[in-house]
Formats: sequence, C-alpha cells, structure tokens
Amino acid sequence: MVEKEKVLEEHRKNRGKIEVMPKVPLLCADDLSTFYTPGVAYASLAIKDQKELSFEYTGRSNTIAVVSDGTRILGLGNIGPEAGLPVMEGKAALFKKFGGVDAVPICIGTTDEDEIVAFLKNISASFGAINVEDIESPKAFNVVNRAQEELDIPVFHDDQQGTAVVAVAALINAIKLSGKEKNARIVINGAGTAGIGVAKLALHAGFHNMVVIDSRGAIYEGRDGDSNEFKKEIAMRTNKDKAKGSIADLAKGADVIIGLSKNGAFTKEIISSMNSKPIVFALANPEPEIDYEDAKSAGAYIVATGRSDRPNQVNNVVAFPGIMRGLLDVRAKKINMDMLYAASIALSKGTGKNLSTEFILNGVFDKEYPKIAANIAAAVGTAAIETGEARISKSRVEIRNDAMMLMKRYRGIEKKIFRQKRNARQKAEAE
Amino acid sequence: MVEKEKVLEEHRKNRGKIEVMPKVPLLCADDLSTFYTPGVAYASLAIKDQKELSFEYTGRSNTIAVVSDGTRILGLGNIGPEAGLPVMEGKAALFKKFGGVDAVPICIGTTDEDEIVAFLKNISASFGAINVEDIESPKAFNVVNRAQEELDIPVFHDDQQGTAVVAVAALINAIKLSGKEKNARIVINGAGTAGIGVAKLALHAGFHNMVVIDSRGAIYEGRDGDSNEFKKEIAMRTNKDKAKGSIADLAKGADVIIGLSKNGAFTKEIISSMNSKPIVFALANPEPEIDYEDAKSAGAYIVATGRSDRPNQVNNVVAFPGIMRGLLDVRAKKINMDMLYAASIALSKGTGKNLSTEFILNGVFDKEYPKIAANIAAAVGTAAIETGEARISKSRVEIRNDAMMLMKRYRGIEKKIFRQKRNARQKAEAE
Repeated sequence: MVEKEKVLEEHRKNRGKIEVMPKVPLLCADDLSTFYTPGVAYASLAIKDQKELSFEYTGRSNTIAVVSDGTRILGLGNIGPEAGLPVMEGKAALFKKFGGVDAVPICIGTTDEDEIVAFLKNISASFGAINVEDIESPKAFNVVNRAQEELDIPVFHDDQQGTAVVAVAALINAIKLSGKEKNARIVINGAGTAGIGVAKLALHAGFHNMVVIDSRGAIYEGRDGDSNEFKKEIAMRTNKDKAKGSIADLAKGADVIIGLSKNGAFTKEIISSMNSKPIVFALANPEPEIDYEDAKSAGAYIVATGRSDRPNQVNNVVAFPGIMRGLLDVRAKKINMDMLYAASIALSKGTGKNLSTEFILNGVFDKEYPKIAANIAAAVGTAAIETGEARISKSRVEIRNDAMMLMKRYRGIEKKIFRQKRNARQKAEAE
Repeated sequence: MVEKEKVLEEHRKNRGKIEVMPKVPLLCADDLSTFYTPGVAYASLAIKDQKELSFEYTGRSNTIAVVSDGTRILGLGNIGPEAGLPVMEGKAALFKKFGGVDAVPICIGTTDEDEIVAFLKNISASFGAINVEDIESPKAFNVVNRAQEELDIPVFHDDQQGTAVVAVAALINAIKLSGKEKNARIVINGAGTAGIGVAKLALHAGFHNMVVIDSRGAIYEGRDGDSNEFKKEIAMRTNKDKAKGSIADLAKGADVIIGLSKNGAFTKEIISSMNSKPIVFALANPEPEIDYEDAKSAGAYIVATGRSDRPNQVNNVVAFPGIMRGLLDVRAKKINMDMLYAASIALSKGTGKNLSTEFILNGVFDKEYPKIAANIAAAVGTAAIETGEARISKSRVEIRNDAMMLMKRYRGIEKKIFRQKRNARQKAEAE
C-alpha cells in the first residue's frame, strides 16, 4: 500500500506533477522574432481570417483542458477546487505519458451548472477537447450534454464514458471467454455517473437483457418518484419485464453483475445464486464490492476489480489517453456512442491470444500498450470520420501512425529527463 | 526581418510552442499509486483541511494563467480568442524560458467585463497568479482592478505594469546618465493601457513634473468631456499648471518625451525643441514614433525604442519573467506599486558599470540576464513581504537563490532537449 507520508513528501518535493515547457527553441533573438513578436502576428492574422487554422498554428490540436468543480473528487465528495487539483494534475500527467496529449488541469470555483457550461464555452477556443472530471451526478450529465451541444470540440466525460469504454471492453472479452452471448442477463448495481454510462454503452453494444439498480432497488419504467431524467431513460431502455428488488434478488440466475456502487455490496451468496460461469465486475474504488478471492471462492468464473494488485484491473487509464488521442488526431467536433464503442472493441482486442479468465484486459505497463492505445485512437478517429464529426479525414493507418509518433515523442523526452532517476532506482533495487 | 512563410511553417511544423510535461516519473505501477489513485487522495485530503496547502502539494505555486479576451492582440485590434492564442502561447514559452514559470495560455470567448472578472475568479484556485494580456482599454483597467480586489492571488497586467517597470527602469538610467533629476520635465504621449501605466509608476518613483497627452491633447484637471476615470486620476496627479496642447507644444523645453502612441508621432523638430540632453523613448511597436537614427540626428542624447535591432530596446520580456518569479516565490496575494517600483530599480541596476547612452537596459540574451531576473524576483518578493502581501517570509538572498535555481532548472532541460537542434544550427552557421 502507498504510505501517506511518502505521497505527501513526493508531492511537496516535486511541487506538483506537471510543468509547461517550450517545445520550440528560444536560443537567440531570431527565435524570439519567429515565435513571439513581431513574427507571431503572421500566425494570428492567418487565424483571424480562418479560425480553423488555430488547429494548425497553435498547440490547440494537441491540447485539452481537464476541468472539475471539485464536487466529486475521487470518492471524497465535494472537497473544493483546491483539493481537486492534485487529482487533475495527476490526470494531466497520465494524458501525456500514455497518450502524448497536453492536458491543462483547471479546477473551478463555481458549482453552478449554468456557470460551468458558460465556463467550458469560454475556454473552448483555446483547446482541442475538454475532459470533464469528478463533477457530482446528475449535474455532470447535464453539464456534459449541454456543453457538447453548444461547443464545437468534444466534451469527454471520463467518469461516465471512459469507465464505460473499459467496462464494456472487459465485458466483451468476458462474454467471449464464457461462451455467453449478447442476450446474457446483466445486472448493473449503481446508477451514478459510471453506472449509467456503462449501461448506455452496453446497450449500444447490443447487450439488451439488462437491469440497473440504484439505492431504491431495480429501476423500471413507471417507478414512483423518479425525477432524474437519466434514470428515466435507463428505465425506458432496460428491464423490459419490470423486475423489482435488490441486487440479492436480481442476481439470481444473472450471467453478469457489474458493481459501480460501494464496498460490501456483493456477497458470496449473491454470486453463488447466479447462472453458470458467473461474471463479476466489482468496480468500486478503492475497495471493491467484493474481494477478488471471495468472489472466486463463491464460484465466479471471471472477476474484475479496480485494484492493480489483482488480475483483471478495470481502470480508465487504459482508455482515456487513446480515446483523446483519436479525438484530437481527426480534430473531432463531438464525441458519440459509435466512437466509444469502437474504443471498447479496440481495447478488448488488445489481449489477443493471451485472453484468459485472468487476463481480460491489458494494463498500461504492458509492453503492447502503446500499440493498443494507438489502435484505440485509430478506432475513435475512424468512427469520428464515419459519423461526420471529424474536421479532417485520414485513413485508419494514418491515424494509428500519427498516434504512435505523438506518443513516442514523449517517451523520447522522458528517457532524457528521467534517465538518472530511473537508473538510480534500478541501482537501488538491484542492491 | 522575419519572413511570413518561415513563421507560418515553424508554427505549423511544431504545432504550437508549448507542451505540458509530467515532472515526476510515471515508470511503474508504484509511481501511479503515488501520484495518482489511490495515493493522491492524501494530498487532496490535506488540502481540503487547509486550502493554503495547495501551494505546497500542487504546481500552483509555480503556475500562472495567461488570459486574454482577444480584443487587443498586439497592434491588431479585436481579432478574437483563436487568433490571440499564438501570442499567448509565445508568452507562456517566454515565462518558462526566462523565469522558470509554468504558464497556461487561455484565450476566452467572452469580451464582457463582468464575465471576464467572474472567469478569473473561477480559475483562481488553480493558479498562483494571473497574467492579464491584450485586453482593450479602458476595460483592461477595470478587469484588472476588480479582479485584484476580489482574488487572493496577484493579477498582473503586463501591458500596463510590465511596460511601466521596463520604461521606468530605462528612465531611471537615462536620468542618471544625463545628470538630470527627479524634477525633470517628462511628457508622455499616449494615454492607453501602457501610457497610463508608465505615468502612474513614474509618479510613484517620484517623477512629479509630468504631462500626459492623449488624442485630444494634454490631459489636465477639469478638461471637458473626460469620462474615463483613469484619465481623470492622471489629470489630478499630473500637469499641475494645466498646460494645454499637442506633443509639438508640450515637448518644448521638456527633458524627456515618452511615446506610447504610434509611428510618426515624433518629428525631428519636436526633438530639437527639447531641453538640453533630450531623452527620447519612442516605444510604439513594431515601428517607433521616430526612428532611432532620426532622433539621434535631431540631437537626442539618449534614444530608446522597442526594436531589437537598435540600442536600448525597451521590451517587457526583460521584466515580466522576473516579476512573476518573485510573486510566486513568496506566494503573493496581490501585486502593488511598491513591488513594481522595486522591480524597476533592480532592472535598472543590471547594466552596472556598463551603463552608457547606448546601453541603458539589459536584454534577455545578455550573459548576466539570469542574475538580473533573479534580482528582480528578489526585489518584488521582498517588497511583497514588506507590504504585507506575501504568504511566506524569506530573506532577499533566499528568494534570489530560489529564483536562480528554478530558472536554472529549465535551462538544464532545455540543454537536453534542444542540444541536437542547437548543434545543428551552430554547425550550419559555421559552414
């Protein structure tokens, strides 16, 4: 486990996790005249006449904002923008490390839905996409939907869409391994941002035999007291036979249970009541709905959790860098379900021949990961082009090659900068 | 001169000028647990309990936003946020290169004063300071004053305050060389953002015999039709004898004329009508009020312009990195006139024994520049502490050493990253 003191000391020592670096040389007056005044006026005037050229002459086509209002930071609730900043900085670092994407963390001082949407609109000319992060539900849905409607760049909601891509990729592989089909009975426990996101993408992927459970039990059409429009949409699209009850009731005979709820929500009894070859995704963080070992001993065929110290980790980090890479590389105007589903398929294929009940998803430190991220980017970019949401057209191979090159670029710099650190660590480990 | 095609090609090829880089290693799962989930929660929780710790555990204490609404980009007028972005990216690159400051360019989609102030307030939890840039006058004054009132981080206005620091530093040295005194007659031609900024800082520095001229002639108390409150303040504090007229009238017998107006505003006749040892600052960009050579041939004792190809360049870039460095290094809450004046003095001292009529200010590529920037930082930080606007206390030497270290850090990385580029260029030049 990570120790508190070590974490705080590392954060203090490094004064945060990211920095802004010139990527052009500023070594003489001529460089300044080219990249700043007076030369820069040529770039500004070109963009003034044709706004889309900002994707050509600035970093916009590789730069995103990571925006949170601090209301749902990790599992910690509304802890404010200052306290959200370490998380968003970390996310920004991961975007660069695993996707070659320049990400700017901005934690904002308003929690008002209208003001957040206006804020996103106000910054949209400076970025190629926006990653909305850790905003409380259901406000987050409204913010993302409204912003995506009004902005001409993708508004990606990692808590909802990123989680959905990874969970559905894992689901596709688990279903395949178990010999089950698209009509498998799936019960999703949890109807927050992630639960609804996973349900919607699984529906889009063709899994149609589904029930979603919230704190009041199974959601069904016509249930009393449901005012949340996102739950209403789920009610209309799932649970055709209007099953009622808790997870203990609904899991009986189910093929898959997916927890996006809280530690302890799944018991051994629940798992042993499922259909043969039970698939159990216990995705609550940091502690899953049920421990990996307990689920296995109760008869689960495949178990996935959010933990890095167990097989089958389901963690957004394997998806969001590649998704964003793809959106940026075709200069997408929006993100849609086709792109997300394409990302799930690309990610699920990453395991290749190694697919097994203990290896249904790749991790970011797998040797193949850069290639998988590039495949995700190519899948997303191609889907953007096919659905008419891309500003530029490229072949799948071109997108993949560009993605590989842009991700490789950071690894080259990383090698130069962290070589000493890496060597020192390796030396220390060897001793 | 810089060529349009070269500028555009360099901007296109590099896709902008800055990038966001991890400054911590992300080489294994343990790194991820420390800098992202689950470890990062410790940093978030610590900040939740004590917001000021965001200066300790995040990059906030080294990170600023460079914000423009696109209404006054360079001399190009209101060309919009997309077209402003190349300039703000360039500025961000200079902040890192010459001050070790991480700067995030954000060009925003609103030009409404209230909305801009609200925007700055909304982002203030994520930054250690804000640099407001290229916003039209007089709105820029209102934005900066209101934001500085409401925010608990410095709101620096480079067009006004940065220009003022450099011009007053040059003025101090020119006055010294010419044997003139603080009662020298100074005429400032131009009452926009820069003109008013220079006038106010020169007043603060003790130059009290001053007239400011706008498009309607000399500003004086009680002039008809003056509604702009910033001009009213200038009217109250300058031109005690209510002189009237144009620059041609007011320059007669003046010791110093400072142009922050437009090309052609100064003539040889104007300069030859001045007092002995005339000091002429022709600071309009990119073309000065009068050419360096013409001013000299008309009898000017010292001439300064904005041009890098003439002696005595007056350019903000020698000041803003050091000023911001100082503000960040003491975690300042505000910026005030004492800090700006301290910066002017530190900058003016940079020339040392080499001070001459052809060398009244240092440039950023002078060998001594890093030391001068550190001295500016130390002067600003010390003034912040003395005026009660610093969050932390340090000695002048500590601030200077910290500043040197933080600026040196980037130069180390620059060497690693641009070594090949630099070598290739040197080789090409040698051949």
